[in-house]
Amino acid sequence: MFIADIRITLKKGVADPEGKNTRKALELLGFTEVSEVKTSKFFSIHLNTADEAAARAQVEKICVALLSNPVINEYSYELRPEKGA
Amino acid sequence: MFIADIRITLKKGVADPEGKNTRKALELLGFTEVSEVKTSKFFSIHLNTADEAAARAQVEKICVALLSNPVINEYSYELRPEKGA
Repeated sequence: MFIADIRITLKKGVADPEGKNTRKALELLGFTEVSEVKTSKFFSIHLNTADEAAARAQVEKICVALLSNPVINEYSYELRPEKGA
Repeated sequence: MFIADIRITLKKGVADPEGKNTRKALELLGFTEVSEVKTSKFFSIHLNTADEAAARAQVEKICVALLSNPVINEYSYELRPEKGA
């Protein structure tokens, strides 16, 4: 049993309106030290796979098949064993 | 100059429809090993603050004031120095 912590980020140069608006909102709230905000999505996926290499291959496929859009996204992940499994 | 990597998760017991639908979609795509998917938001915030303690205090305030809803969210973060700063 493994848990994959997958982070889906926007590629460099892709507009991040949510990040820009968050920065503006923080500025209005008085947080003037904030120079940049970037947003990304995070997925924690539990895998019923005993083998780490198999789990890693699955996660790669999942990222490509569903979670990320190769035009605008990049993905990264960390695989960790599930506690008590 | 610090970068704060902030993760906003849903509290235990709070419904995560996006996660549930992602799990269903993965099942339909043949990824039957996936037993659970949890989603969360991720913010990378650049802070023009030289002092780490001050940066940490800022990040705490930012999480409470804007990024997280205490009714449904929990937040965690890691602070790291910005490269080349």
